[in-house]
Amino acid sequence: MRLSDQTCKPPRAGDAPLSFAQAEASRRDVPDWSPEGATISREFRFNDFREAMAFVNKVAGVAEEQGHHPDIFISYKSVRLSLTTHKISGLSQNDFIMAARIDQLYAGPRPDKANL
Amino acid sequence: MRLSDQTCKPPRAGDAPLSFAQAEASRRDVPDWSPEGATISREFRFNDFREAMAFVNKVAGVAEEQGHHPDIFISYKSVRLSLTTHKISGLSQNDFIMAARIDQLYAGPRPDKANL
Repeated sequence: MRLSDQTCKPPRAGDAPLSFAQAEASRRDVPDWSPEGATISREFRFNDFREAMAFVNKVAGVAEEQGHHPDIFISYKSVRLSLTTHKISGLSQNDFIMAARIDQLYAGPRPDKANL
Repeated sequence: MRLSDQTCKPPRAGDAPLSFAQAEASRRDVPDWSPEGATISREFRFNDFREAMAFVNKVAGVAEEQGHHPDIFISYKSVRLSLTTHKISGLSQNDFIMAARIDQLYAGPRPDKANL
């Protein structure tokens, strides 16, 4: 099943984080997300602040629905999201499921305005 | 006139940033904001992610209205806001006006849940 069709499962404190090999395998489906320690993160760019906020609100809806919340950093028309699974102090499949679901929400800036 | 009743004015590239003394004088009206280099920032705490997002959306509305946008960092039920005036590479009165207006939007977590 595609990552974006999967559902986050509540993590349990004893669960092991994904191994490096497992994480790298999952990351092939969300190649725009960069690993940084125990997180994966991606920057999203928009035409203006209003579009950035509309995206953040869509992400917030999915986060509530899946019970898994990225850290969200909004700087005007740029949004950086970071995912990790605090309960296991590492990456879980939930992080990659959320990454794939978030990628589906992102249309990107209009090409004519992408470099403004 | 109280800071929160004032309106942000478009900064001009040649404007001087506030002096240390001017910034400290303005900060007396928004004492919960901490200076960090050329920014002031404050952390806001909520009962849950939904309340944090509701606050962020109120802040976004004031930011659009005033044409002055804080950096916004959302980590589950905590929101950190930072203000600076990029155009003058420093703090302007706009930053303190926004800080005062944002303070007015914040009710804080419910006392019975403040430490959850």
